[in-house]
Amino acid sequence: MELADAIASTRAIRRYRPDPIPDEDLAAILFAATRAPSGSNRQPFRFVVLRDHQRTARARALLGDAFRAAWDAKRDADGYDRGSGQDPSTPKARMAATMEHFVDHIADAPVIVLACLELRRPPGLHDGASVYPACQNLLLAARDRGYGGVITMWHQLVVDELTDALGLPENVAIAAAIPLGRPAGAHGPVRRRPMHELVFEDRWGSPAPWATEPERVGVAGGPPTPTME
Amino acid sequence: MELADAIASTRAIRRYRPDPIPDEDLAAILFAATRAPSGSNRQPFRFVVLRDHQRTARARALLGDAFRAAWDAKRDADGYDRGSGQDPSTPKARMAATMEHFVDHIADAPVIVLACLELRRPPGLHDGASVYPACQNLLLAARDRGYGGVITMWHQLVVDELTDALGLPENVAIAAAIPLGRPAGAHGPVRRRPMHELVFEDRWGSPAPWATEPERVGVAGGPPTPTME
Repeated sequence: MELADAIASTRAIRRYRPDPIPDEDLAAILFAATRAPSGSNRQPFRFVVLRDHQRTARARALLGDAFRAAWDAKRDADGYDRGSGQDPSTPKARMAATMEHFVDHIADAPVIVLACLELRRPPGLHDGASVYPACQNLLLAARDRGYGGVITMWHQLVVDELTDALGLPENVAIAAAIPLGRPAGAHGPVRRRPMHELVFEDRWGSPAPWATEPERVGVAGGPPTPTME
Repeated sequence: MELADAIASTRAIRRYRPDPIPDEDLAAILFAATRAPSGSNRQPFRFVVLRDHQRTARARALLGDAFRAAWDAKRDADGYDRGSGQDPSTPKARMAATMEHFVDHIADAPVIVLACLELRRPPGLHDGASVYPACQNLLLAARDRGYGGVITMWHQLVVDELTDALGLPENVAIAAAIPLGRPAGAHGPVRRRPMHELVFEDRWGSPAPWATEPERVGVAGGPPTPTME
């Protein structure tokens, strides 16, 4: 697949067919992840690939519980059941339905990749530059092979239990939990703000007149969709 | 370019030809960046593209000074002038020469993209998931169009001065400074650890026998190269 097409069409996928992911595809996806840059090329990223459902039952159950609890809290805090959320035809209500399905089934995803980071000190924002480029390579390579996934952070609710269940060393942080599988059902386009809201030239707020979308790509204007893309 | 080829061949580029980057290429590169995922699809990433050398003279000078100071400190701390660094034919000495050239010329790079992040709270590791995937998309799209760059963090030494020079709002952090240009001179391959050191199956430390490199790709064994890839 052409790079430009992969980048323009990789979006969050939260519903998966049950098909397992063959060795060859997983190898290509993880190879892509490990090619990413990192600070001083130290490559502190590590990937724990949860695959065998029986061997990873404890970790999957922990993630399932955490995602359910996190979504319940977000559903309430962000008012998914109020206003337009009460009309099932609205984007808000459809997003809520997608999230319900997601948290009900996350534990059964064909594969869940835990993107980890070996630390030399308590991590800050900039340490993310040594693991999240790898996560993006992983998602692009998954897209290239017909899979989809999403970068999630709700593992944080059970990080101590997960650390114990998976035998993570003390100096290792889980930077993201990324479920992967063949997309099930229909998925909308990548929805992003128009470029002129995101790109400036020479100075903050100064328009970059050249920063326009390729003609064939639609963009979502207005407020961002309340999803986890 | 095929996605897999772009991912396997995108490496840190630190020497640039002086050619400016045309609008069309910049648009494609920044478009790729803005397609990246972010938490709840909020798209808090913003990109300040330093292009016009006169209008951005102050910011470029600040970055040049910061990079020089940071490299001088690293050169000393990491012993680039000791041991094998004294032999100009060693990788260590070649890396030092590359870095000398890099910090001497960073202020003149055809383009420097400041990848920024609008904050709602003091940022931590996980907030990086809303800006560094975009940086990786940017580097891949640059590679696709024949450009190269590198994610750098040395702007942090002058972040207050840069914030002032560029008019950044108070709630905006600079997550990375990424110079871009046509690569000058010869560049080696992407050097990464073998996959079996980075990928585990089902549990930390448990080998993933399928995690092997594609045959045509070489990997660098042994300790990581002391670079900023």
